[in-house]
Amino acid sequence: MPDEVATQEEKIKSAEELSQHQKAISISEFFEKNRHLLGYDNKTKALMIIVKEGVDNSLDACEEARILPDITVKIEELEKEKYKIIIKDNGPGIVKKQIPKIFGTLLYGSKFHRLRQSRGQQGLGISCGVLYSQLTTGEATEIASSTGKEEIHKYTLKIDVKKNEPVILNEKSEANPHKWRGTRISFVAEGIYREHKQSVLEYLKETAISNPFANFIFESPSGKLEFRRGVEKLPIIPKEIKPHLYGVEVGLFTRMLNETSARSISGFLTTEFSRIGATTATEILKKAQIDPKISPRRTTDENIVNIVKAVKEVKLSKPPTDCLSPLGEKAITKGLQKELSPDFVASVTRSPAVYRGWPFQIEVGIAFGGTIAEANFMRFANRVPLLYQQGSCALTRSAASVDWKRYGLDADKLPKGPIVLMVHICSVWVPFTSESKEAVASYPIIVKETKLAFQDAARKLSLYLSGIRRAERIAERKRIFERYAIETARALQELTGEDEKKIKGMIATVVEKRWGEVVDSPSGNGPTDGD
Amino acid sequence: MPDEVATQEEKIKSAEELSQHQKAISISEFFEKNRHLLGYDNKTKALMIIVKEGVDNSLDACEEARILPDITVKIEELEKEKYKIIIKDNGPGIVKKQIPKIFGTLLYGSKFHRLRQSRGQQGLGISCGVLYSQLTTGEATEIASSTGKEEIHKYTLKIDVKKNEPVILNEKSEANPHKWRGTRISFVAEGIYREHKQSVLEYLKETAISNPFANFIFESPSGKLEFRRGVEKLPIIPKEIKPHLYGVEVGLFTRMLNETSARSISGFLTTEFSRIGATTATEILKKAQIDPKISPRRTTDENIVNIVKAVKEVKLSKPPTDCLSPLGEKAITKGLQKELSPDFVASVTRSPAVYRGWPFQIEVGIAFGGTIAEANFMRFANRVPLLYQQGSCALTRSAASVDWKRYGLDADKLPKGPIVLMVHICSVWVPFTSESKEAVASYPIIVKETKLAFQDAARKLSLYLSGIRRAERIAERKRIFERYAIETARALQELTGEDEKKIKGMIATVVEKRWGEVVDSPSGNGPTDGD
Repeated sequence: MPDEVATQEEKIKSAEELSQHQKAISISEFFEKNRHLLGYDNKTKALMIIVKEGVDNSLDACEEARILPDITVKIEELEKEKYKIIIKDNGPGIVKKQIPKIFGTLLYGSKFHRLRQSRGQQGLGISCGVLYSQLTTGEATEIASSTGKEEIHKYTLKIDVKKNEPVILNEKSEANPHKWRGTRISFVAEGIYREHKQSVLEYLKETAISNPFANFIFESPSGKLEFRRGVEKLPIIPKEIKPHLYGVEVGLFTRMLNETSARSISGFLTTEFSRIGATTATEILKKAQIDPKISPRRTTDENIVNIVKAVKEVKLSKPPTDCLSPLGEKAITKGLQKELSPDFVASVTRSPAVYRGWPFQIEVGIAFGGTIAEANFMRFANRVPLLYQQGSCALTRSAASVDWKRYGLDADKLPKGPIVLMVHICSVWVPFTSESKEAVASYPIIVKETKLAFQDAARKLSLYLSGIRRAERIAERKRIFERYAIETARALQELTGEDEKKIKGMIATVVEKRWGEVVDSPSGNGPTDGD
Repeated sequence: MPDEVATQEEKIKSAEELSQHQKAISISEFFEKNRHLLGYDNKTKALMIIVKEGVDNSLDACEEARILPDITVKIEELEKEKYKIIIKDNGPGIVKKQIPKIFGTLLYGSKFHRLRQSRGQQGLGISCGVLYSQLTTGEATEIASSTGKEEIHKYTLKIDVKKNEPVILNEKSEANPHKWRGTRISFVAEGIYREHKQSVLEYLKETAISNPFANFIFESPSGKLEFRRGVEKLPIIPKEIKPHLYGVEVGLFTRMLNETSARSISGFLTTEFSRIGATTATEILKKAQIDPKISPRRTTDENIVNIVKAVKEVKLSKPPTDCLSPLGEKAITKGLQKELSPDFVASVTRSPAVYRGWPFQIEVGIAFGGTIAEANFMRFANRVPLLYQQGSCALTRSAASVDWKRYGLDADKLPKGPIVLMVHICSVWVPFTSESKEAVASYPIIVKETKLAFQDAARKLSLYLSGIRRAERIAERKRIFERYAIETARALQELTGEDEKKIKGMIATVVEKRWGEVVDSPSGNGPTDGD
């Protein structure tokens, strides 16, 4: 038993001895050891994540460059549990000198420092694919890219884990006679290929729903598949925004003061923040008792604290929302109809809202009946499907908090039966619960918006369902009436001596007059079950 | 409605334009924006985390230096939602030149690169406390430390977020006439002080249970509290181990080959890995068809892949387990008795097991009845209480998978009523689900070990409970018998004419003979309900 304890007589270790082990940890080392934080916690999932990181980057680049995306994903089994994964796009390409940094450095990218809706945001994903590949198979990653004008640049590289730097094993530039433009990445990694619910296939299927403007070709070990684009136009490009004062704390404020080119504190407020006009700036500075003309570099720590406090007492305009690019109700309806062929679809896009100063928007869809075999719940964040950690996600918890039975649905937290729910959050900064970006953190306003959206869509479904049910009830009553009508007809015939055919015809006319119309148009006539 | 889409006529952005935004992200910037990953997602929790990071470091340092810990935590309200948090210990102190790095750099520390059980493992915690403080209040953190021999070194510092480096605002060394030894840290941070279930108070209470050799003084806004040590001896110091070959993949193996001072691949295997003897090394290399004398630097990529494959086919000894320092069954029982005064305690310490090549050990305790008012579930990892994310933790899921009703307990997943469960995982590397170290990842072997431990403890409780219940049944039958005995006595009196008192006495003797003994000793006699 380990209850024994050491005695105090042991030599006390000195701070000097202890300090010998102190050293810096590179971010690559950190994620090498903690790769489950990035989602690499099993071999099936690993393949999905590599594909996802590549495809998300391709879609972001195409959207920003205003190119309709054509993306090919190829997965080839090299040997047991070892795969080649190729992702190829027709995007803008990457300039030569950036290639090694983007693929060979963790925390490097263009999206972290900008407040704009995009799929990637951390600068971790694609380089972690390189890291995972070399870790599990020892193999380098191959990248080929061209901007279409110049040559094709080819790199074979790994990551120096201790330095968090690319190690270039091979590098060459080739002629580009056909003016090919795009990027092609080839990983060799450990994995298991499956086609279950949380697979590459499912990721691509759902991505096709949320990105109907993109073409996907998927060459998998079990054959070739194509998801063709449904619309020929790209979504409007979301605009970059400035930080909103409501979300800014003392620390960030101080940093921004040191970096601004504004000459006065008043100018700083109006130029560096979202929707702060001269009047609002004056009001804030008056409350904070600060001279509006003072230089940003001359503000004291006390000044800063006073400004941040004053901000809380002033009513500010909401941040602009053209930084967001929701799918829209029509696109959701179309996407669900195309993929699921349901009997009914309801979709709701809420107005944008704000958490911690960052704009976000929730939209949901409900598809019911038709070819839907079983209940499903699909989550998206900035058009990217979230396939893991459903239980820990704020979007799920919010959906589960809806009283679905009230809307005429069978439910155990989430609705059961032939029903598919989908929810999409878009934001300039989606608050994920971990680097693997699988679940959304529970900010109360996000939970609330999601619930309201689902309630709204559920009301629509409930109208449809009660229409159906009313029609069913009426049809049943008609059937019963008709059955009795035959008896009635016979009785009438005996009583009146009239022709049976004539009597049946008269009864049919009565039935038609009484029940006909309602039975033919079941939808939209029922009473409201919802609140 | 946002269904409108942009046209293809928009100017296609070039790769050059896009590349202008590409840049490196410092780890400090990353966590500044993602501080919820470290658990800083609400103000109440923030205070708890800062205290926890400080105290965990103090305990680690004291344990390693073989000093019985005396730790003082002070929380003082400066203004609404702004607190001064002081953590002071009698540890070994920190050498001067390390102070700024330890507190002013994220990912810096002594524990990441060593395979040994310790509370900290990432090199993130304490510097993130500094980061959170400056972010929310703009204030620097003050550190004073001395090794007892030399002067007291005092620093006031912040973190340069863009560079991930300390910014020293003030630095001085003072005389140390009383030979004070230890470290004192003073943060000023935004927070809310509460004394509910997930608070500083609860953290200290539970830490006192899992670290009975430490003294804690807590000066809170509501008064002074002391948790005195229950044992005067430190636990045995866990030993550092080498990586185990079962957990090593191609990537790490390659890195180790480049860093080794071994002259042959055979020597490399026996010196750099845990429990690989010459015979095993020869067997592995024979299977991999590699000359044992080849230099580590000369091994090819193919060699490496073959070795890693061969390892899977060879039976290796389990890693040593003296790197682990469990609490032990006696200490668990004592701790639960001391804090909860229950009627019954069962504790189980399992033998060590291995996941991904890393040793770990599970131990559990169940306390029942007595002064326990309501059900509680306490989780610990390397002696640190885990207060958040109970639902996402493998330890919880495992406990919930036990069929508690089988052991005579009322339960809805976890047992209900006057019962407290505790579980402790200790490991050289606890696999947490996020940097905030609040929940353990679901490795199947960890889930299995936890379940077995709880089942074992539940069996013990069930024996106790069935003893109690048997005693209760017997007491009830005795009561009934006695009640009837009075009637019987009267009847007998009438029949025999004997004195009522005498008859009653005779009946009492019968009762005593039949039921007396069992009623007096209720425990340990019941049948087994468990499996």
